[in-house]
Order: sequence, then C-alpha cells, then structure tokens
Amino acid sequence: MNKPKGLLLVVSGPSGAGKGTICGLLRKALPDLAYSVSVTTRAPREGEVDGKDYFFKTVSQVKDMIFRGELLEYAQVYGNYYGTPKPYVMGLLNEGRDVLLEIDVQGALQIKKVFPDGVFVFVVPPTLSELRARIYNRGKDTEEVIEKRLKEATHELRYASKYDYIIVNDIAEKAAGRVLTLLEAERYRAGRTYFIIDKILDGPEK
Amino acid sequence: MNKPKGLLLVVSGPSGAGKGTICGLLRKALPDLAYSVSVTTRAPREGEVDGKDYFFKTVSQVKDMIFRGELLEYAQVYGNYYGTPKPYVMGLLNEGRDVLLEIDVQGALQIKKVFPDGVFVFVVPPTLSELRARIYNRGKDTEEVIEKRLKEATHELRYASKYDYIIVNDIAEKAAGRVLTLLEAERYRAGRTYFIIDKILDGPEK
Repeated sequence: MNKPKGLLLVVSGPSGAGKGTICGLLRKALPDLAYSVSVTTRAPREGEVDGKDYFFKTVSQVKDMIFRGELLEYAQVYGNYYGTPKPYVMGLLNEGRDVLLEIDVQGALQIKKVFPDGVFVFVVPPTLSELRARIYNRGKDTEEVIEKRLKEATHELRYASKYDYIIVNDIAEKAAGRVLTLLEAERYRAGRTYFIIDKILDGPEK
Repeated sequence: MNKPKGLLLVVSGPSGAGKGTICGLLRKALPDLAYSVSVTTRAPREGEVDGKDYFFKTVSQVKDMIFRGELLEYAQVYGNYYGTPKPYVMGLLNEGRDVLLEIDVQGALQIKKVFPDGVFVFVVPPTLSELRARIYNRGKDTEEVIEKRLKEATHELRYASKYDYIIVNDIAEKAAGRVLTLLEAERYRAGRTYFIIDKILDGPEK
C-alpha cells in the first residue's frame, strides 16, 4: 500500500468552545481539506445554505437514512436529528483525501467507535466564564435553551479524556494553529507512514 | 495534579540514520531539554568527554549497576555495554523536565516497556544507498564492523512499526523540525493535558 488513506480529523467539544470558528480557519489554511456536511432536521438559520452548511432533511428522510445504515453517527439534540452521511465520508477517505468533521461530543464518541484511527480533537474554552459568555453572546436561542446548553457544556468537559488531543481555544487563530501542528504530527505517526519503510527497502537503490 | 511530569522523548533508529545530528539540533532549539547521558564500556572516541558524551565505565562497574537495578535499559553492542542510568532520567521527569534520549533500536524497545508514555521516534534515512553512504562515511570502524552495522541497520528498519513516529531524515534541519512539531503536538495529547479540564472546572471563574 503506497497511497495512504485520508485522515479523519474530528473537531469536537462543548457548545461555546468555538469549534466552528476553528474549523473555518482550518479550511482557510488547508483548501484541500474535505469537509463533512451533516444532515439535520432542524430549521435552517439565517444565511445557512442547504448542501453547504447542512443537508436539511425531514424527520422521515433521516429515519430512512438511519434504517438504511447511511449515517455514520446520529443524535437528537434539542429535539432535532443531526447525522453524518457515511458514504460521503468513506468515499473521500478511500480516495486519500483528509476529511474535517465538526461535531458535538455525543457524535464524536460514536464516530470514535467506528473510526478509532481518526484524530479526535476536543476544543475547550480557556475558562468557564468565557464558555458562559460565548454561549450567551450567540443570542440565537431562548433563555431556556441557553441554560440547558450551558449545563450540558460544563458536563461535557469531562469527556475530554476520551479524545486524542485537548486544544484550548483562548485565541481562535492560535488554537487553529495548534490543530495544524497536531495534524502535521499525525502524518508522521508510525501507523500512517510505515509505507515509507517498504519504499526504502524496496527502493531502486536497494 | 496541576504540574505535569516531564516528557521522555526517545530518538532512535538504525546506525547511519542520523540520530546524533538530529539530537544535536533539538538541543540547540530547546536549551531546557535535559539530555540523558548513557553509560558505556567502550573506549572514548576522539573528542568525547566523560559525563557529557557518555559516562565511561568498566565492565565490572556496569555489571554492578545492572545488579543494583540502576539501568533503565542496557545492551551489548559490538562487544561493549551501553546503558541508561535510571535514577538520573526518573529524577528529571519527576521534576517536570523533558528528557531527550538518543538510543539504538534494542534500547528503545526496552525503554518502551518501562515507559510506554514516552514518545518514541524512529529516524530513517531517505534511501538505502543514503544509509550505506552515511555508515561508510563515518570511517571510524573497520570494514568488518561497517558491514555488520549495515546489515543490522537494514534489518532494524522493520522495527519502525513499534514506534510512535517515523521521521525521514532527508535534510537534518527539516527532520529536526518535524520532531519539534510532533513534540509540540504531544503536549496537546489528552493524556498529558487533561489537568487543564480540572483547572477550568475548578477555576476562580466558576
């Protein structure tokens, strides 16, 4: 095997950690990075584009996908379904493309069972007050949803131990830089780069 | 635990891979990196300083150290003993200092059993002919020793799969840069940095 498969980079963490901002910066820095678009049954927010931000589906459509095994993971969050389309991600990885997946904690842990070889990154805010501020400043949800989200986010911090890396999102650009660093390091992992040994031993200079 | 232990960086690989050059560059780049000095029974080469390049010992002294369990690993290579003084390395790690250990393949695999949390880096030459050239150009050994070393080096390439990372030493500066990258990434490993979660949850901003 001389062409390695793509690497699945899972960027996860609690609400308000800043996953989205970091993923945006990663995509800017790495234009070749494929981006996994999720399906969801929640209503599009202002400015969101179907097929780009999400594949917006009906509950019945998502249930069909689950039934056909077409979702790599799925979850109900605040009453809506979210899922990752399996054939899409698998196809990209098999072509050798790296895939970025921005996903909540529940979803990441499901993916980890299917792809233990993925690189699982947990993004955390620098402090609890910063987490609180970020969740409040979104201002897109009701007070009740915000409170629920905040409690859940604090609880979810403990799941960091299940991940490969913990990245503190103090300044988004710095945090994204740290992810780029670990992504480069992951390319040197023996499990991913052992084909080099075959190449050396079988090389023309033998 | 708010102060993490130091990280043990093991730089290994076959003879002629360029471990020594890379370690020299790492020490220049990271002046705070502690360096594990080995004991050996082989005669000092020109310019080598006792206590800096090696602790030069008699066979009887090294046997005593082995008997007292004072060597983290040891091996006989080309008739000489080489070993890593355990109390020295353990002391530095417990103080929170990172320790660089340049070691042959046999030694690295022994260390891995004692310190699976160490970071094990396998340095490889870009091609077999390059490996051959580097071993020949040392010009410090007899033809017989060189041939033995070359055969052993080729055989040892397969052990790369036992390591955490494989670094191709095409240009020493680049290879050292790759090690610096993976070293930074290792600091973000969940197992090493989980104390941050405790800090966030117990922080003054709670």
